[in-house]
Amino acid sequence: MGKNAIRFHFNNMFRPAVGEHGLDMAAIPAAAEAVARMHAAMCVKKEQMAWRQLPYNQQQVVAEVKQTGAYIRASFDNFVVLGIGGSALGSKALFAACCHPRYNALSAERRGGPRFYVEDNVDPDRLQSLFDVIDIKRTAFHVISKSGNTVETMSQFILVTDLLQKAMGADFRRNIFVTTDKESGLMKKIADAAGWKSFVVPDGVGGRFSVLCPVGLLSAAVLGIDVDALLEGAAAMDKICTQPTVEENPAYLYALLYTEAMKQGVNISVMLPYADALAPFSEWYCQLWAESLGKAVDNQGKPVHYGQTPVRALGVTDQHSQIQLYNEGPYDKIITFIGVEHFRNTLLIPSAAVPVFEADYVCGHSFNELIAHEMQATIHAVTTHGKMNNCIWLESLNACTLGKLFFFFEMATAAAGELLQIDAFNQPGVEAGKVATFALMGRPGYEDVARQLSEKHSASESYVFHA
Amino acid sequence: MGKNAIRFHFNNMFRPAVGEHGLDMAAIPAAAEAVARMHAAMCVKKEQMAWRQLPYNQQQVVAEVKQTGAYIRASFDNFVVLGIGGSALGSKALFAACCHPRYNALSAERRGGPRFYVEDNVDPDRLQSLFDVIDIKRTAFHVISKSGNTVETMSQFILVTDLLQKAMGADFRRNIFVTTDKESGLMKKIADAAGWKSFVVPDGVGGRFSVLCPVGLLSAAVLGIDVDALLEGAAAMDKICTQPTVEENPAYLYALLYTEAMKQGVNISVMLPYADALAPFSEWYCQLWAESLGKAVDNQGKPVHYGQTPVRALGVTDQHSQIQLYNEGPYDKIITFIGVEHFRNTLLIPSAAVPVFEADYVCGHSFNELIAHEMQATIHAVTTHGKMNNCIWLESLNACTLGKLFFFFEMATAAAGELLQIDAFNQPGVEAGKVATFALMGRPGYEDVARQLSEKHSASESYVFHA
Repeated sequence: MGKNAIRFHFNNMFRPAVGEHGLDMAAIPAAAEAVARMHAAMCVKKEQMAWRQLPYNQQQVVAEVKQTGAYIRASFDNFVVLGIGGSALGSKALFAACCHPRYNALSAERRGGPRFYVEDNVDPDRLQSLFDVIDIKRTAFHVISKSGNTVETMSQFILVTDLLQKAMGADFRRNIFVTTDKESGLMKKIADAAGWKSFVVPDGVGGRFSVLCPVGLLSAAVLGIDVDALLEGAAAMDKICTQPTVEENPAYLYALLYTEAMKQGVNISVMLPYADALAPFSEWYCQLWAESLGKAVDNQGKPVHYGQTPVRALGVTDQHSQIQLYNEGPYDKIITFIGVEHFRNTLLIPSAAVPVFEADYVCGHSFNELIAHEMQATIHAVTTHGKMNNCIWLESLNACTLGKLFFFFEMATAAAGELLQIDAFNQPGVEAGKVATFALMGRPGYEDVARQLSEKHSASESYVFHA
Repeated sequence: MGKNAIRFHFNNMFRPAVGEHGLDMAAIPAAAEAVARMHAAMCVKKEQMAWRQLPYNQQQVVAEVKQTGAYIRASFDNFVVLGIGGSALGSKALFAACCHPRYNALSAERRGGPRFYVEDNVDPDRLQSLFDVIDIKRTAFHVISKSGNTVETMSQFILVTDLLQKAMGADFRRNIFVTTDKESGLMKKIADAAGWKSFVVPDGVGGRFSVLCPVGLLSAAVLGIDVDALLEGAAAMDKICTQPTVEENPAYLYALLYTEAMKQGVNISVMLPYADALAPFSEWYCQLWAESLGKAVDNQGKPVHYGQTPVRALGVTDQHSQIQLYNEGPYDKIITFIGVEHFRNTLLIPSAAVPVFEADYVCGHSFNELIAHEMQATIHAVTTHGKMNNCIWLESLNACTLGKLFFFFEMATAAAGELLQIDAFNQPGVEAGKVATFALMGRPGYEDVARQLSEKHSASESYVFHA
């Protein structure tokens, strides 16, 4: 499968490569029983992990997504995703990985589809600026919220329906597309009352595992990304990532090595792709890894406060920002390099039009060679500095290899949760902030919380500076 | 100075606010001697820290920058910065903080200046895509490299001079603007040979401390950003950040609290602004903090492997990605919140054009209230979860308050280096990767390194997977 191939290299996680701060090779046989238990649990829980069925059980959904996507592609100048977190990061990763790096700046002919925006914040300046650059009458909005309790998305939805109605009257309903829960939740209620047919976030598919359902697939279809190849890539990776042992299953090995490193106090995971097109993929990974494994208690309710902080970086750019720290700093991180063998363009470094003296050694090489050599050089540098790292090589970056990457990290994350014996699929720690926001925004039923908050904030403070 | 005011809140760094995992208030008096030594060193070394003079000693430079900036503003459709790391991040922070959030998508009339691009990577797809959206004949390039040894910037420079000459012949020289060392280095030699007058990176101003010299100022001038206000903000912050004690000097307190936390094993620093316009500022901070404090040895040459890994996050977006980890995960991080009291726009949440049922509690509020309440709610949540945090409130985000932020963090970083007794201004750990890249690109004089690298890579590998 040539151009869709992926290679994983894990050697630089071990002491023979990085020295005393690496993992002991003996950790792998020693973990055989734990891995066997983990695999058994992954098999038993497969049905509950509904995201694992998405590569296989969506024939009808995909047909509807393609149909709606083709309609939006042909009918609108702009496509705006209204969603946040897991409802946004998959679409951002798909867009960056598969579309032209300056897609929105291209002509309609070169784009072949609408301009694309993901509005995953409520910053008033940023949100207002969207309406400075789009004609709202010519804009389709994809509103994504499983529950309809997402205050950011609902506030955006309310603003947009008001603006649309003022601009177009009753016709505005045609510009709204909804993805939410099958039957329950506020957004479903709203969609039904307004007469919107809605796409479904299947039960058991949490936000951070939802990219391969309509949450991400509709963006892909609107952008002309090959939805079938995306799911085929995920299915191909699933075949490998359901193998029982770490010798056959890279997701299990990744999970084992990272959880072993966590036990040694390695609390940082750096995602360092050498391709601008993968920068938003790192953001998607950061939510997956952080929200799934950052847990206060294990399955027995024992306080553990697990969690590895994911860091998104970009090669080669961040070599000039972070590598001093990675090389000389603490032995507290693992770096995952992602390389792309074949970019879409081959860009040569020609001879300069002015004398460049000893800088001419680069002339005749390509930027493709340069970025590949810089990644190789950086792997060499962090390895010789004794820092654990691993590498994923993509033969090329396309819908299929991206589908493989999504599924690989979802499986690795689920497996890591089993090895740590925590619930990788809940997010109880997000509640406190949501409740406080509801209270501060005056949502009925949260008056007591509001009172506590205002008291808290009237407390006098020292160590406050005015500048 | 109303709209230019900044407030710092440090209370949530201490045990009374966050409990046992906070800092002991007694750490402050206990550190009095260390702080006094640090302040003495900061005074003695002030002259060497040439970046500390930049708010005061650039009258002539600023006049020239403004003149050139006005010329570029009036004469070109596009302005492209060719630089990486410290030569790029300041310009990106200035652009995002002070210009329209979708500036490049606006009409020339609304922009009032050229489109703006910072090309700080060598990804062939991204670089090629630039030439799909600009008319190179109508584009000014600002080439920034102190030494001229920056392989990424030099390769871009060589490509651009070739393309320009092919498009415009000898006239192309008018499209190139250079900032480099005063007298030494390859880029200076190239500029002199080509007859380009170049702006100067002053001696003693390292890349990550260079935003307030022409490296950043020319971008500001081209973008119509108030250069004087930027430097006045820095000067105003300098007044406060040269005070001798942590009771008077927020930069010293920041440095003391962060280094004390580091000694307790807190190895992560999260920069979490609640404004899209500050997201690139976080990237600038990440280089400053990582590259300055990530050091293998102290001033006595003793191995220390210090360094706190900076993490850039964005409120409210990353509440839906990272807060589960921050709240329930390990006590291994400090979160710096940055809030903006007054955004440029006030954006109301109106009534919806369709029934939204219990979601209507947000109607009549503003997005300004929402983002402020979410920040307050998140501070409350991480604090009640026992995680150290502090907060910087900007009355508004503008050139002056941004200048204050730049200078505050530069002073805090220098002070932290003194408290840790390390050299905050070198980056020896970056060499290994640079040398390896030179070798792999066939630079004369690096043949031995090239040989070692190829041997290393021919070594057979286990734990390699093909998918």
